[in-house]
Amino acid sequence: MKGSNIVKIIVLGADGYLGWPTTLHLLNQGYEVVAVDNYFKRKIALEANASSLFECPDLEERRRRLTAPAKRRLKVVVGDCADYHFLSELFRVEEGPGGGVDAVVHYAEQPSGPFSMIGFDQAHRTLLNNLGSTHCLIHAVLEHAPHCHVVKLGTMGEYGTPNCEIPEGWLDFEHKGRKERRLFPREAGSLYHTTKILDTDLLHFYVRTKDLSVTDLMQGPVYGTWTPQLEESGMDTQFFYDGVFGTLINRFVVQAVVGHPLTVYGKGQQIRGYLNLLDTLECVKIAIENPAEAGELLVRNQYTEEFTVNEVAERVVRAASNLGIEVGIASIPNPRKEQEKHFYRSTNQSFLDLGLKPHLLDDAVIEGMIRKVQAVKDRIEVDRIMPKVKW
Amino acid sequence: MKGSNIVKIIVLGADGYLGWPTTLHLLNQGYEVVAVDNYFKRKIALEANASSLFECPDLEERRRRLTAPAKRRLKVVVGDCADYHFLSELFRVEEGPGGGVDAVVHYAEQPSGPFSMIGFDQAHRTLLNNLGSTHCLIHAVLEHAPHCHVVKLGTMGEYGTPNCEIPEGWLDFEHKGRKERRLFPREAGSLYHTTKILDTDLLHFYVRTKDLSVTDLMQGPVYGTWTPQLEESGMDTQFFYDGVFGTLINRFVVQAVVGHPLTVYGKGQQIRGYLNLLDTLECVKIAIENPAEAGELLVRNQYTEEFTVNEVAERVVRAASNLGIEVGIASIPNPRKEQEKHFYRSTNQSFLDLGLKPHLLDDAVIEGMIRKVQAVKDRIEVDRIMPKVKW
Repeated sequence: MKGSNIVKIIVLGADGYLGWPTTLHLLNQGYEVVAVDNYFKRKIALEANASSLFECPDLEERRRRLTAPAKRRLKVVVGDCADYHFLSELFRVEEGPGGGVDAVVHYAEQPSGPFSMIGFDQAHRTLLNNLGSTHCLIHAVLEHAPHCHVVKLGTMGEYGTPNCEIPEGWLDFEHKGRKERRLFPREAGSLYHTTKILDTDLLHFYVRTKDLSVTDLMQGPVYGTWTPQLEESGMDTQFFYDGVFGTLINRFVVQAVVGHPLTVYGKGQQIRGYLNLLDTLECVKIAIENPAEAGELLVRNQYTEEFTVNEVAERVVRAASNLGIEVGIASIPNPRKEQEKHFYRSTNQSFLDLGLKPHLLDDAVIEGMIRKVQAVKDRIEVDRIMPKVKW
Repeated sequence: MKGSNIVKIIVLGADGYLGWPTTLHLLNQGYEVVAVDNYFKRKIALEANASSLFECPDLEERRRRLTAPAKRRLKVVVGDCADYHFLSELFRVEEGPGGGVDAVVHYAEQPSGPFSMIGFDQAHRTLLNNLGSTHCLIHAVLEHAPHCHVVKLGTMGEYGTPNCEIPEGWLDFEHKGRKERRLFPREAGSLYHTTKILDTDLLHFYVRTKDLSVTDLMQGPVYGTWTPQLEESGMDTQFFYDGVFGTLINRFVVQAVVGHPLTVYGKGQQIRGYLNLLDTLECVKIAIENPAEAGELLVRNQYTEEFTVNEVAERVVRAASNLGIEVGIASIPNPRKEQEKHFYRSTNQSFLDLGLKPHLLDDAVIEGMIRKVQAVKDRIEVDRIMPKVKW
């Protein structure tokens, strides 16, 4: 199923921060998209006293507001991907008699580390939802669309912070004089991140035994609010800035706008690989257009630049200052159990080789985010900024 | 919690082939035992048209038939370990105000590879039960008995058949000139075996972040029917010989008794590490009495001898012949997706160092099994012998 033959793509978790812009980007590339969600993330955000900074109509309403031809190529389906009856029926219908589903993008997971660490209930729902949706997806594909390429959103967090370079998925190693190649052994820092490890192991099992075709995208934290298709549609994507659902750079931008000292956890020397929302969309498109073979688990590391938390904070401070906003940096006790100073080296060569042109985190990008957040400054709830979940 | 201080042990999955003899063995060592089960395995065996060759009363009846003092030290509780309300209440009550639960042995999992490969329903129930019971156990322990040592039954099958020696859990490796130590990367051959990998990852996460104390027993296929406590009690343990729930040597013994050619899957050169039921009980006892520290995941490989399937078949043929039973060996198409000829080397040094004295698979052991099965030959359903689940 090489790029030029792809017609229809299912996006699971299409309501989310990445799901909706991905849907628009794929529509813009000319693909038919089936956008699926059950608003699980919106519901748990309500429970966790969090909400999107930008208003987001539901999927049906967003579809209605699109213009043709994108609107015509988009189908919205509301349902729970961890419910096999729903998901297998979806694949049966979309596959049709002639073979219709070329790829599925799997975002339908509880995506927050802190949420998964609140207590048993949140942890267990994260486990059952994330493993459940992945397992139902695997069987729905095997039953109705075995040729369909599964593009799964993983996380760089699965690797943790090993004392060696992080490869793209696979480790060649030697033990007692003999060589072997297996998935790099992973150690994540939250229950959520651990469910992504389990997902990968599940997918890998069915790749080996049932010839499933899978790409696992090991993604770093995403930042940004803007894509050309979002602007054209006149609607925003969901954007969280609280301590539970917000990603680092997005949180810092909101903190800067309200003049809250940027909340650096502990020493701030934690290094991660980040990427712009625009690059997420492009990576997913590239992954779809360069699919894994049947019986192949293709792992690609999906980030563009590595920073320490302190470096990110300094950049946001500088960009804010350019706009006349003076904001400080405050080290706060680290709510997470993680190494604050560690070796970190990894590679993202696979997407660069396939032509990804990264959008880097420069002052202009951060200034653009600050301006966008300033326009809705009144909606920011300052008491959501400090992290409340500790582990 | 070193050996001499241990008083009370909870056994989850106490109704099973290993669970009941383990319960009796621990009672015989003088421990108090809380035996827990919801008869999940009996229920799914009914569905799969399988049943124990030996009659097995339920746990309450078996407790009633015991003699003091074992009977006095045994408590039976019926409930579902994947139900957090049940399991956390159990730990709350058993822990009591003074700290009562010293160790928990976790057998409460769907234990059959073939069952997990029948179809989506069986696979999904295996996934939800095994991950669900493990996750509920972790949180029940953290909430009510954080000092309690978790002894988890894993499987050598988690490792698969790598092209290098299998260590006891941990791999020291070098990648691009830098050294790291992580869990040996695992690749199992069935969905059931894969859930055991996921279990280990879950436990390892909570070991790292919440200082849980865990021993993971990587066990090979168990054979045998006899323990001194079973004999003393006048009752047997569950014993399956069908293609879904039976383990290799047990199945071959039953096949020999009815004169069915021993069903070797494919070339029969698959190598695994096996152990006698007696050694399982002793390994679990040793593991309990030599616990992991808080924040430690201790992995022990639990088997005593390695054989190819052909070697096992030849030994059963010989032992049967000693008893005047002539039986052949038939290679049948392998119903499993597995390597039939492969490198295999592993180590079980940890239990040997702690004093395990293995009971080896000699003619006398097999002859004893054959005689025991001959006594209930009429109960054998021959049409359950051939494997019906393929993957």
